[in-house]
Amino acid sequence: MSEPVKLTDASAYESFLDKYDTFLIDCDGVIWHGNNVLPNLREALSVLRKKGKKLLFVSNNSATSRKGYLKKFKKLNIEIHDGEVFGSAYASAYYIKNVLKFPKEKKVYVVGDVGIIEELESEGIRYAGANEDSNFDTSNWDYANIKQDPEVGAVLCGFDIHVNYLKYAKAFTYLNSNPECLFFLTNDDPTFPANGTVYPGGGAIAAPLITALGRNPDGIFGKPNKPMLDCIIQHLNLNPERTCMIGDRLDTDILFGTNGGLGTLFVLTGVNKEQDILAKDARIIPDYYMASLGDFSIL
Amino acid sequence: MSEPVKLTDASAYESFLDKYDTFLIDCDGVIWHGNNVLPNLREALSVLRKKGKKLLFVSNNSATSRKGYLKKFKKLNIEIHDGEVFGSAYASAYYIKNVLKFPKEKKVYVVGDVGIIEELESEGIRYAGANEDSNFDTSNWDYANIKQDPEVGAVLCGFDIHVNYLKYAKAFTYLNSNPECLFFLTNDDPTFPANGTVYPGGGAIAAPLITALGRNPDGIFGKPNKPMLDCIIQHLNLNPERTCMIGDRLDTDILFGTNGGLGTLFVLTGVNKEQDILAKDARIIPDYYMASLGDFSIL
Repeated sequence: MSEPVKLTDASAYESFLDKYDTFLIDCDGVIWHGNNVLPNLREALSVLRKKGKKLLFVSNNSATSRKGYLKKFKKLNIEIHDGEVFGSAYASAYYIKNVLKFPKEKKVYVVGDVGIIEELESEGIRYAGANEDSNFDTSNWDYANIKQDPEVGAVLCGFDIHVNYLKYAKAFTYLNSNPECLFFLTNDDPTFPANGTVYPGGGAIAAPLITALGRNPDGIFGKPNKPMLDCIIQHLNLNPERTCMIGDRLDTDILFGTNGGLGTLFVLTGVNKEQDILAKDARIIPDYYMASLGDFSIL
Repeated sequence: MSEPVKLTDASAYESFLDKYDTFLIDCDGVIWHGNNVLPNLREALSVLRKKGKKLLFVSNNSATSRKGYLKKFKKLNIEIHDGEVFGSAYASAYYIKNVLKFPKEKKVYVVGDVGIIEELESEGIRYAGANEDSNFDTSNWDYANIKQDPEVGAVLCGFDIHVNYLKYAKAFTYLNSNPECLFFLTNDDPTFPANGTVYPGGGAIAAPLITALGRNPDGIFGKPNKPMLDCIIQHLNLNPERTCMIGDRLDTDILFGTNGGLGTLFVLTGVNKEQDILAKDARIIPDYYMASLGDFSIL
């Protein structure tokens, strides 16, 4: 494994940028923290655009659809265009439709938020669950209310702030009663960053199903897993050698790039720190790293 | 490992019963299925009582307190006396109070149902969570609402039909922000039986915390784990050699007995079947087994 190259001045930035045509860019911890855009980020992205680079914003957050992301970019006054966002909810819908060729008469039971629903709708995939099961009235509860449903051909689980026992019991029953029902996660991040700390993420939300079923999912779409990258490469017809993943998390963003044969640029504005890649026992090493993506704004 | 002895007639029943003074008896799948008492069960328990045996009903179900169990036995017209029920909720409260000697000024944050609350109250342990966080209004949600609380000295998680993201986020935050905060599960059953099938159990409910924290609990009280047995033996001053665990689940009941040096009697009225103990690769073997505990009624 070779040493990561630290980018610290304009000439290093220029020769780095010359190596790639396309940049896959993580959002949280790289271009913003929550609703706060990082310093010089808008200007740095303009530099990349002026150099003719193709940009794709890649997020594991399944609670927001591409449409939702476009809104957020606009609200934060960051230049964005249709087709420049790829989240794990869209990756899931894209994969289920185009790779899995999910039967039209079947439906997907969703433990998740509006982002997943919007993306399944955009791909014309039938679904159940999500919002319709968010209000769980336990006052007349009877386990016999949960019926098997042969129309459910897959369970898709992502981050869900409205998660409840009804959703877990239904998803479990569909999977447990029908060995042909597929089990997918939008992503498996154990936590996600917010408010200067972390909270249970999509991988935590899915854990009760994995524990109760005693088996792993049939597919996990988000970083660092391969399906999302396969979707992106197929969708945008990318050359991996001329593509670089930019991110703040070693175990999702950088591993995703490394697993996919992309270049990798690690930035120090998020979850992981410089010591995490310089430690003797570091396992995930980026090709390049720099203090902040905003530093490209000096070019 | 010796072959299990199948009990099939009155003389085998008599010589088995002569070996033990105390019987720890699992409830669901042994004496009832849900609200249906198994055939001849009342009569079989009377036989044991007439022979002067001490009975203790031992359940992993943390949703019901000892008080709640007494009510259920009475409703189902099964003879029961104070002190004859020991559930994982009580084992948790007993352990936290008497073994851990939990500081009086600290409180336990509960992800769980009324059974846990009733048992913590009975032991005079301060608590938070449970019912008070069951109604989670996400309309004005802000992660910043979740504050660290230095008064929370432990998180106790059990089965919770009202589980929601607020409870997970709070429990996670208390544990993640304070390395001295202890993490306990009432039990870790991945599923529990109901309605002729199974549903996600207490172990599934706890899984998001384990996944998000990236660590195992500091203690798990219910069968097959040791703390519940330690509490029972200490509480009742039992001689393990003269005590027999009767249950329908190999991986909880029988393993619990085996781990604790008790005799074990496996009954075929529940989750596991005869082939599970006779298979060549069987790992958990009871000392004795019989068709149904109700068969003792012929004595």
